Amino acid sequence: MTALCTDLYEIRMAVSYLRRAMTDQATFSLFVRRLPVDRGYLVATGLADCLDFLDRFGFTEDELAYLGREVGLDRSATTALRGLRFTGDVRAVPEGRVVFAGEPVLEVTAPIAEAQLVETALLNFVTFQTAVASKAARCRVAAGTAALVDFAARRTHGLEAAAAVARASAVVGFEGTSYVEAARRYGLTVTGTMAHSYVEAFPDERAAFRAFADDFPDDAVLLVDTYDTETGVRHAVDVTRPVGVRLDSGDLLALSRRAREVLDATGLPRARIVAGGGLDEYRIAELVARGAPIDVFGVGTRMGVSADAPSLDSAYKLVEYGGRPVMKLSAGKVTAPGRKQVFRGDPRDGDLLGLHDEAVPPGREPLLVPVMAGGARLGPRRSAHQSVLDARSRFHADLEWLPAAACRLARPEPVTVRTTDRLATLTDEVRTSLRDQLPGRS
Amino acid sequence: MTALCTDLYEIRMAVSYLRRAMTDQATFSLFVRRLPVDRGYLVATGLADCLDFLDRFGFTEDELAYLGREVGLDRSATTALRGLRFTGDVRAVPEGRVVFAGEPVLEVTAPIAEAQLVETALLNFVTFQTAVASKAARCRVAAGTAALVDFAARRTHGLEAAAAVARASAVVGFEGTSYVEAARRYGLTVTGTMAHSYVEAFPDERAAFRAFADDFPDDAVLLVDTYDTETGVRHAVDVTRPVGVRLDSGDLLALSRRAREVLDATGLPRARIVAGGGLDEYRIAELVARGAPIDVFGVGTRMGVSADAPSLDSAYKLVEYGGRPVMKLSAGKVTAPGRKQVFRGDPRDGDLLGLHDEAVPPGREPLLVPVMAGGARLGPRRSAHQSVLDARSRFHADLEWLPAAACRLARPEPVTVRTTDRLATLTDEVRTSLRDQLPGRS
Repeated sequence: MTALCTDLYEIRMAVSYLRRAMTDQATFSLFVRRLPVDRGYLVATGLADCLDFLDRFGFTEDELAYLGREVGLDRSATTALRGLRFTGDVRAVPEGRVVFAGEPVLEVTAPIAEAQLVETALLNFVTFQTAVASKAARCRVAAGTAALVDFAARRTHGLEAAAAVARASAVVGFEGTSYVEAARRYGLTVTGTMAHSYVEAFPDERAAFRAFADDFPDDAVLLVDTYDTETGVRHAVDVTRPVGVRLDSGDLLALSRRAREVLDATGLPRARIVAGGGLDEYRIAELVARGAPIDVFGVGTRMGVSADAPSLDSAYKLVEYGGRPVMKLSAGKVTAPGRKQVFRGDPRDGDLLGLHDEAVPPGREPLLVPVMAGGARLGPRRSAHQSVLDARSRFHADLEWLPAAACRLARPEPVTVRTTDRLATLTDEVRTSLRDQLPGRS
Repeated sequence: MTALCTDLYEIRMAVSYLRRAMTDQATFSLFVRRLPVDRGYLVATGLADCLDFLDRFGFTEDELAYLGREVGLDRSATTALRGLRFTGDVRAVPEGRVVFAGEPVLEVTAPIAEAQLVETALLNFVTFQTAVASKAARCRVAAGTAALVDFAARRTHGLEAAAAVARASAVVGFEGTSYVEAARRYGLTVTGTMAHSYVEAFPDERAAFRAFADDFPDDAVLLVDTYDTETGVRHAVDVTRPVGVRLDSGDLLALSRRAREVLDATGLPRARIVAGGGLDEYRIAELVARGAPIDVFGVGTRMGVSADAPSLDSAYKLVEYGGRPVMKLSAGKVTAPGRKQVFRGDPRDGDLLGLHDEAVPPGREPLLVPVMAGGARLGPRRSAHQSVLDARSRFHADLEWLPAAACRLARPEPVTVRTTDRLATLTDEVRTSLRDQLPGRS
């Protein structure tokens, strides 16, 4: 992550602001305009990377030289960027909390050049990680009492994405990941068995199972569907007392039942059945509803790319500059002005979207909390692992809070979000004053 | 990228192989099983990252310590992994070339532990980058004579993904990217204008345009839709002679026409109109078909996450071990055995999928070429920039070769892929011999 991890227009705008000493405080609000189809809530994620990015923000001499040489910035521009750090304030919804459309996940208040330069990175982290955490949360809800593990690494959008997916899925309660680098980075439980290639590399399936059980006696989960699943289960119990068996293809309902029967009949009622292969929340829910005796669902690609909603309609909008609330009027993209706060209470009453300095209404709590002031992080520094655990606790609490209608997989009903009177009045005032400035319009 | 960028099962299998001195050469074939809906071809991309990964492959002492401490590998296992390097051969379809379902994009032949350990990373790079390049290629085809630029960075799956998206879109002929870090890394043209926030930070739109034109006189593309687009265009031409105007929302057909009229009437027939906002190949094709006077399409999120097909059904399958062709029989996932080659000729004759050592049929060329031997790269080392240009040349040549029916946006018809007699015979033989080993089946 470098300060060049940004769109060029952010740099151009920053240079232009700095050149004319436009250093007033600007507030940008990061939010999701609309929920994707079949999302009743979003799980705010990505803040940890945002704070790391802001902490380290600054251009190196090499980067400034590049901007001069290849982008055509003149010396006064690169001089203005030299030594720039992020010195602003950030208020944010803590990771793992549930949010809805239009609610700010994060607000940055800083000299406008700084706040602008970090737009691309902050939007990217929050949009992607929130999309994946929200998809993974649906899998978690669908799985009921079964465990979930992340198997997505091989088809995420790059290896950094694989690490972020492992973390996001851990936030919503996945019990492990297959991706070793993510496990190391975030202190997650790492899990893994064998591939079909392993079975194929031995003269026969029994020899493969025997070898694996010899090498990993405490942790032998055997992949039984390379050739024929039922035969595979029999081979597994012939050669060892497996901790579990894994199914990776075929009719998982029928095969898991048959595998359970064989394992039980062999005196292995505690051997776990791990199943994967193209799973998402819909297939998991169907298997659970039909009573498939699956103990662990391995969820891969469809969760890791958030297949039905691989992005969110997110925005990072200027809402205040130099103490003046601002908004734009572009068709279909009106943004309410001013720094905001979300007031949450009983879900039946809905959330209230108001201004940051409104009094907290009785029985409600403010969702956005200060996380950075004057460019310095607030609160105790958490380890990468502890930050996942903290987020997971928040998610579990919010999941208790969420109405069943919002958790439904198909056509969920999000909690309603209403605007406070003060925010509604301010929006009207700013809109009117902007319209008055347009020629030929009133 | 470290050797821990892998699924745990790869490490477990490798340890098991090394422990019992299973060091025979294995060949794994990486291919896409099925094309997504509305894909008539795929653009092979990701090989450059694969080769970088293989070049640097190896465990550090810290990583081995982690595997011992947290994953429970014993000393003999970590000793076996210490000093391991990738020493194998790789044959691959060069980046930018067009491939179809079932055709290997890459084949790795190496001692089985090495070939297994690199599975996760190779699959990840090829799957993601090929998915995005193929989506971007459809945008390139749809845009006709208009230029395309990549605006995806803010909503890709992480910032490393943003760089890969910029590169993949450059391979298929995008003329620039907004993402500075990618431009620096790959020597791409970087492009950027201003955001709505810039306009809003000034007392009025004219003041914003004047400031931007002062600061970037050679490159002032002005965003005209913050308040009212037609008024915005008039403000732009009032204060400067803009190089272009940018439209980011609303009815791009009507607005681009109106903008063109104003620009032409002001004696600016060469000022370019840049349009973006939720574009993909379908919307671009519609705007082109209706004659929208748009010179540059800015394509963002939907291309950058390959919105309608964010992953591919890719596989990395063992096809040969110790000189013995292998395959698995899992339901719906049968893989043809043996090292392969794709023989390409006239598209009307279709591609031929055969074995690697078959004679090249007359009038055809082999698609897979050796790119690494004994762990060392073959051929001259290309700069990151040159590798993009080379891939782009190949894509342009293959685009000429592709039949119109394969390039169609809706319900395209891929070029057919037939199996050579030798491969068909081998597949039958291996299947029969495997079935004979299964009890109760023939």
